[in-house]
Amino acid sequence: MSAASNAAKRIVPLLDRVLVQRVKPAERTASGLFIPEKAQQTLNEGVVLAAGPGMINNEGKVLPMHVSAGDRVLLPEYGGNLVKLGEEEFHLFRDSEILAKLNKA
Amino acid sequence: MSAASNAAKRIVPLLDRVLVQRVKPAERTASGLFIPEKAQQTLNEGVVLAAGPGMINNEGKVLPMHVSAGDRVLLPEYGGNLVKLGEEEFHLFRDSEILAKLNKA
Amino acid sequence: MSAASNAAKRIVPLLDRVLVQRVKPAERTASGLFIPEKAQQTLNEGVVLAAGPGMINNEGKVLPMHVSAGDRVLLPEYGGNLVKLGEEEFHLFRDSEILAKLNKA
Amino acid sequence: MSAASNAAKRIVPLLDRVLVQRVKPAERTASGLFIPEKAQQTLNEGVVLAAGPGMINNEGKVLPMHVSAGDRVLLPEYGGNLVKLGEEEFHLFRDSEILAKLNKA
Amino acid sequence: MSAASNAAKRIVPLLDRVLVQRVKPAERTASGLFIPEKAQQTLNEGVVLAAGPGMINNEGKVLPMHVSAGDRVLLPEYGGNLVKLGEEEFHLFRDSEILAKLNKA
Amino acid sequence: MSAASNAAKRIVPLLDRVLVQRVKPAERTASGLFIPEKAQQTLNEGVVLAAGPGMINNEGKVLPMHVSAGDRVLLPEYGGNLVKLGEEEFHLFRDSEILAKLNKA
Amino acid sequence: MSAASNAAKRIVPLLDRVLVQRVKPAERTASGLFIPEKAQQTLNEGVVLAAGPGMINNEGKVLPMHVSAGDRVLLPEYGGNLVKLGEEEFHLFRDSEILAKLNKA
Repeated sequence: MSAASNAAKRIVPLLDRVLVQRVKPAERTASGLFIPEKAQQTLNEGVVLAAGPGMINNEGKVLPMHVSAGDRVLLPEYGGNLVKLGEEEFHLFRDSEILAKLNKA
Repeated sequence: MSAASNAAKRIVPLLDRVLVQRVKPAERTASGLFIPEKAQQTLNEGVVLAAGPGMINNEGKVLPMHVSAGDRVLLPEYGGNLVKLGEEEFHLFRDSEILAKLNKA
Repeated sequence: MSAASNAAKRIVPLLDRVLVQRVKPAERTASGLFIPEKAQQTLNEGVVLAAGPGMINNEGKVLPMHVSAGDRVLLPEYGGNLVKLGEEEFHLFRDSEILAKLNKA
Repeated sequence: MSAASNAAKRIVPLLDRVLVQRVKPAERTASGLFIPEKAQQTLNEGVVLAAGPGMINNEGKVLPMHVSAGDRVLLPEYGGNLVKLGEEEFHLFRDSEILAKLNKA
Repeated sequence: MSAASNAAKRIVPLLDRVLVQRVKPAERTASGLFIPEKAQQTLNEGVVLAAGPGMINNEGKVLPMHVSAGDRVLLPEYGGNLVKLGEEEFHLFRDSEILAKLNKA
Repeated sequence: MSAASNAAKRIVPLLDRVLVQRVKPAERTASGLFIPEKAQQTLNEGVVLAAGPGMINNEGKVLPMHVSAGDRVLLPEYGGNLVKLGEEEFHLFRDSEILAKLNKA
Repeated sequence: MSAASNAAKRIVPLLDRVLVQRVKPAERTASGLFIPEKAQQTLNEGVVLAAGPGMINNEGKVLPMHVSAGDRVLLPEYGGNLVKLGEEEFHLFRDSEILAKLNKA
């Protein structure tokens, strides 16, 4: 994730937005066989690369965020904004769109 | 539900989200006959595996949840987010989307 | 309604939801003739089997319900959630979706 | 409207709902000729048979109704809930959907 | 507008509704030639025949109206409710849907 | 804009509405060649002819307008109400729909 | 960006609108080969040319902006208003639609 990290480090999410990189589906089976792209599973998992400072309510108060950089998270099937920077793809979700945190296996 | 439990235990729902596993429809009749998948009934029942801490209102107050882990619940036909973790499928619903609790028969 | 009652008794509606069983359309005419299923009239009538405790507003106050178990009610043509439990079908409506109470004829 | 009245009297509208019976279009011309059903005009007029107690706002205050039983009213082309009771058809509108009261000609 | 006036005088708009009669498009050119109905221009102009007392906000306060009977107004292309009374057609718009007042030429 | 002005002067926008006349696309090139209507560019520019007094919030306070008569403005591609008065076309936008003011070149 | 700048300098965004010029996709590869227009990548990147003073809430308070002129930003795939001024194209986004700021590489 070295080159991606460099691109990602340039991105500073605004308000309650969360910069996420989706976990790529496996391209080979456990036994090393190649899985064709169409058969690769879309994953709900992502890694938070950066989180904005939080939404501001009408009274000007910053609302707290629920995820932070490094969190592994579950993402909804739809929603979020896809952005491409160089060769890499990222997603920006609003904090409240993130479904769950995911602890280590 | 042993392997599923391990996957499920990794999921920490955010805000007012509820992690649910749908009860699987019967694959055989009471007399042991196999029921083809197309004839298997989709069930409204699910089991709550984990519940988030609750939605936060605009004043920053946490709103209470109405279900908790272990509850058997009735789910709406539509809505919720399907997530796949390993071989297992889970659903994440918002607390207010859960229709009812279901007592033991 | 004996078996249905047993299934229904297991259901505990959450928030402002109301468990309703639709009144079944007549299967025979007054003179005893069979009415084919397609010609049977869908009825707007239902019986409240259970009512939730009430919606909670943003300040945490429980809002009162307007129907209770045993009420005969008029239902909208659309809306509500169909749930199947065993062989029986029930509907869950929000309290504010119930159109009217229906007094005895 | 005798039989209808008996059915209508059983209906107790909830919240801000208004029970209305649409004025039926004329089936004959002034000179007594039969008007085929397709040529009969749908009318905007209705008679209020019963009115609910009023909507309750978030603070629990009952908001006043603007029509009451006996009022002749103008109805919108769309909206409202059609209910059938016995042989009669009624509509339930929300108080704020009623366009206008109609004084006697 | 004599017969129309009699029908219109019966209509008492509720809340913030405004009873409007659209200005009819010219049926003849300035030189007296007949304009076929399809070529007649739909006009944005209308005359306010009656105005309701005003919308009531959640605190029960009546909000002021911005047009009154006799005002010539500009109407949006869409919206409003068409009502027919006898041979005449009227429209009911909400006060906030009226685009502008129109002074005399 | 003489005749148009006379028609426009009759229009008194209500609430937060803004009367705008779109700048017409050029009908000839700089060198005088005729541009066919289909090739003429729709322009985002307009001139404010009149502005309403401002929207009224729920507490009855008038909210300030951000454009006034004489302002050259940028308009969104969609939205606004087209009105025709005599031979002229005007648009009515809400104050908050106007994208930007446009200073002189 | 000289001519564009002159056009852009004329635009004064209203409320919370942000004037953005999208970064044009590369027309040649790094080795100088021409990339056909259809193969050119739409970019999420833009440069803020001007930012409005900020949205005004219902109490009349100006809400702060999160970007300012000169910021390089990430834009959503959809949304915003396209405006053409002379030969140049600009976009106007609301402040809250801007996904992220983009630091220098």
